Amino acid sequence: MTYQAPVDDIMRTLKSAAGLDGLIAEGVLEVDEDTIRAVIAEAGKLAAEVLEPLDTLGDRAGSKLVDGKVVTPPGWKQAYAQYVAGGWNGLAAPAKWGGQELPQVVATAAAEIWDSANLAFGLCPLLTHGAIDALEAQGSEELKRAYLPKMVTGEWTGTMNLTEPHAGSDLGQLKTRAERRPDGSYRIFGTKIFITYGDHEMTDNIVHLVLARLPDAPPGTRGISLFLVPKYLVNPDGSLAARNDVTCAGVEHKLGIHASPTCVMKYGENDGAVGYLVGEENRGLNVMFIMMNAARLAVGVQGVALAERATQRAIRYARERKQGRSATTKRADMAPIIEHPDIRRSLLTMKALTQAARAICLVTACETDIARRAKDPAVRATAADRVALLTPVAKAFSTDIGCEVASIGVQVHGGTGYIEETGAAQIYRDARILPIYEGTNGIQALDLITRKLALEGGKVVAAYLGELQRTVEDVRVCNRPEFGRMGKRLAEAVAALGEASRWMGSQLQSNPEAAMAGATPYLRLFGLASGGIYLARGALVAARDGAQAQPIALARFFAENLATAAPGLKDTVVDGADSTLMLAPEVLSP
Amino acid sequence: MTYQAPVDDIMRTLKSAAGLDGLIAEGVLEVDEDTIRAVIAEAGKLAAEVLEPLDTLGDRAGSKLVDGKVVTPPGWKQAYAQYVAGGWNGLAAPAKWGGQELPQVVATAAAEIWDSANLAFGLCPLLTHGAIDALEAQGSEELKRAYLPKMVTGEWTGTMNLTEPHAGSDLGQLKTRAERRPDGSYRIFGTKIFITYGDHEMTDNIVHLVLARLPDAPPGTRGISLFLVPKYLVNPDGSLAARNDVTCAGVEHKLGIHASPTCVMKYGENDGAVGYLVGEENRGLNVMFIMMNAARLAVGVQGVALAERATQRAIRYARERKQGRSATTKRADMAPIIEHPDIRRSLLTMKALTQAARAICLVTACETDIARRAKDPAVRATAADRVALLTPVAKAFSTDIGCEVASIGVQVHGGTGYIEETGAAQIYRDARILPIYEGTNGIQALDLITRKLALEGGKVVAAYLGELQRTVEDVRVCNRPEFGRMGKRLAEAVAALGEASRWMGSQLQSNPEAAMAGATPYLRLFGLASGGIYLARGALVAARDGAQAQPIALARFFAENLATAAPGLKDTVVDGADSTLMLAPEVLSP
Repeated sequence: MTYQAPVDDIMRTLKSAAGLDGLIAEGVLEVDEDTIRAVIAEAGKLAAEVLEPLDTLGDRAGSKLVDGKVVTPPGWKQAYAQYVAGGWNGLAAPAKWGGQELPQVVATAAAEIWDSANLAFGLCPLLTHGAIDALEAQGSEELKRAYLPKMVTGEWTGTMNLTEPHAGSDLGQLKTRAERRPDGSYRIFGTKIFITYGDHEMTDNIVHLVLARLPDAPPGTRGISLFLVPKYLVNPDGSLAARNDVTCAGVEHKLGIHASPTCVMKYGENDGAVGYLVGEENRGLNVMFIMMNAARLAVGVQGVALAERATQRAIRYARERKQGRSATTKRADMAPIIEHPDIRRSLLTMKALTQAARAICLVTACETDIARRAKDPAVRATAADRVALLTPVAKAFSTDIGCEVASIGVQVHGGTGYIEETGAAQIYRDARILPIYEGTNGIQALDLITRKLALEGGKVVAAYLGELQRTVEDVRVCNRPEFGRMGKRLAEAVAALGEASRWMGSQLQSNPEAAMAGATPYLRLFGLASGGIYLARGALVAARDGAQAQPIALARFFAENLATAAPGLKDTVVDGADSTLMLAPEVLSP
Repeated sequence: MTYQAPVDDIMRTLKSAAGLDGLIAEGVLEVDEDTIRAVIAEAGKLAAEVLEPLDTLGDRAGSKLVDGKVVTPPGWKQAYAQYVAGGWNGLAAPAKWGGQELPQVVATAAAEIWDSANLAFGLCPLLTHGAIDALEAQGSEELKRAYLPKMVTGEWTGTMNLTEPHAGSDLGQLKTRAERRPDGSYRIFGTKIFITYGDHEMTDNIVHLVLARLPDAPPGTRGISLFLVPKYLVNPDGSLAARNDVTCAGVEHKLGIHASPTCVMKYGENDGAVGYLVGEENRGLNVMFIMMNAARLAVGVQGVALAERATQRAIRYARERKQGRSATTKRADMAPIIEHPDIRRSLLTMKALTQAARAICLVTACETDIARRAKDPAVRATAADRVALLTPVAKAFSTDIGCEVASIGVQVHGGTGYIEETGAAQIYRDARILPIYEGTNGIQALDLITRKLALEGGKVVAAYLGELQRTVEDVRVCNRPEFGRMGKRLAEAVAALGEASRWMGSQLQSNPEAAMAGATPYLRLFGLASGGIYLARGALVAARDGAQAQPIALARFFAENLATAAPGLKDTVVDGADSTLMLAPEVLSP
């Protein structure tokens, strides 16, 4: 069943939710709409012709460790070469280092499409992009010159080495150590786990970014430094020198994304892996956060991508599969199941959640561009705050709905959905990593309430709530009959988010544990209110332009069927903390 | 990580939610509490010692078709023999056929325990029990004598053959045909798919119950007959005769329950499979419904079972895994993650949902016993109606939360949860079949609103709502400080269910499509309100008896954090149909 890139949906979302027209008119994006559409459509071709055909195959073959080398599935290396040859890796990278410097939002849309077609493949560039960002932001000119050009083309890939067996969410516990050498380089010793594409033979070299601790570093997160550790050392002329002292010691056997090698990496089992400091000593976590924010948005986009893929599959299946009589058409023979009201609810839920999450992600990507490209520093700062606020929502809400939509997708297929050959089950398995990696969704929720709500003394979230409220007013003013109760439900959802936000603000001072107890339902509420508003903006545009039934129906469905959860989530946040915390941990028995 | 049967939780639920003490005192159950506890505890031993050690192994090895025979995983046959030798299979079967005739609720509790330990194993007896029920209800004395004794001991297993490639939810489409033979037997020809334990070598014989159509049968569901088709024919003296014309043509490659062979069965590829009519010609679906209702409750119990297993694993992991600082204990070193508020919310959600679903299932099982055993025919009839009402909720709510709790279980483990060796992922994969088989949860929701709400002109659901409301009053009267807003939230939930039920009643007459559009959120609302009330009954007992913190905390947590979704679900049901149906199916594009 062929994947088709949702070019129209993406363009519509960019225009209605993310304000694309204005950004182009103001010269912020420095690219026109036709170019964006053309790039996205071309990305869709690569997805449909090269990446999607390898998706099932990659799941079955998996990546394996054979004789100390990671063997990716058949076709993987060639597909990656095509991706590199097409110039896709440098889409948003700086022109100085060979990139095309297109807006981040274009690269984000393209990434969604590749991730839809083949998530396990799409993960590799995701990590390279994070490494490029970190190196560009904090690396020395010498390091940049030596590594960035090849990373931007994709000739070399990048990795992020954070996790250790005893340091996952809590990076302050990491033990990998770095020793200073007289030549200014370092030697790295330690074991890292869960390293995505930690090793492979698709490229000549791999550039590892590794968190480690110097012997005299302070304990905890303030004593962590970031090092660049290449798989092969690089000569001054750019040619490859000796193999560095880093090896892949194992590839995990995972629930999904089988083709993406998740590696155990050993650094310095002999005389130490040669590493180069990125940024300042003991300030590595700050640099890593640069990578992580972009990567968190990128993972949110993966959630959208799998939700989109699952939705396409489910709709196609529901159009073909015939069972039972239709209440709608009264036809004598069996009806396609898409005619049954309960299946329509399932499909609309899938589609509405997917488009809401996509809007949140694309808005965040657009704000990233504004934060980088706007001429007015105040505009840039405001956009950067908006990115900070929305990133945890983009990551957690989108990946949660990625799993939920994948699950509905299995369900729509009935018994067939449980059979691996159908493909719905693979999406379900693949999607389950997304709420976990790049900071679990629980960590995202805590980030949202403890750091992001506090930005500028609460003004950042207040301004955002004001914008949501203005859309509520616009919906009420427009008030078309086909909007139904959209205005009422969105008003309730935004009011619920406002009340929960105020409660969070007060609790964080007086009773932070209570605030933390409500973090996850608060983030869900945030996603529902935001997503509902973004879909409503699409409905307003569709109502203005006429003729498009689907954006209005989806926005109304979301408001009347999904955003209805908002007031209850507010109650949970505001009144649920005491009962969440009343049972002492030691009393909660298995 | 060892599974421990939740004997205390089960007993507490039986007493507080299902009224066990009264049923024993009135002589309905004809068994005392100590016996029930002893049987359940003994079932727990079999689970922990024999079944659970095979669970991971069974997942990895799977059942496979080798040279036309289904090979179950190593140890499977021996474990099944132990299960049979222990007399477990006939726990609730009629004494007349060798069973122990214990109450259904005891067998239900035991099944939960075995399913927790090893779902793929537990499936085999589930199907046998369904076949026993059907045969006992409608089989001729001759058939019963020939087959029931061996099926009750478990020496022969049973299967249900309903689904065909073009007949899943819509059984009226099935094409398997039956031809009458002069000796009174029939010959069966056709292909059935998704046949659980359709073939295996664990027992000497397998008794297939097969739906088929006679040549002169009316079309649709009124022309379906049920046949007993043994794998081996049986001589008058009970010894086995020739192999029947039925073969396993394939075993599916599934997302989970790998050890349970899901078979493609071919009947009559040569001269026809010998079959014997069960019940009357063309009335087969009625008999099958007898099996299905019991099987639907049993599948609901599987949802509880996997939720329980996932919860036990997650709590144990959260006690051991240390990351980050605790806001509670202020200890200097890393805290077990169970001390973090967001993890506490996750674990309480798992535990509260599990116990709520268990209560719904055990209440339904108790009502089954009352319907069979009470002396007063009016009491029996009322209980039978209650079983009919609650069965779709028990099946769908419990299996939905089975998947949700399994998903939270993966999440609590973080990256480790995505690694297959941890075990959390297997539960997640295994659980996903439960909302699909024995009637998809969408079918359950439609059954609930179209058939069950209409029972006795709506009096059955009205009486049930009245009971829920009385518990709301009890909670308000008790009104302990530690109950928090439990009374308020449960009152809102029951009121929401009442309003949605009344709306359903009116729409089913005037606008059945609108009712069907809201069936799934209505069933969820039903489960949340019922589950919340049953947990509250546990809290009331605990408050009366003193000292037990956990039942009160779980009930309050459920009311304040999960039942809060009820009013929003009511809004979705009552106001969401128009937007669910406004987009014509052909407009909904992939």
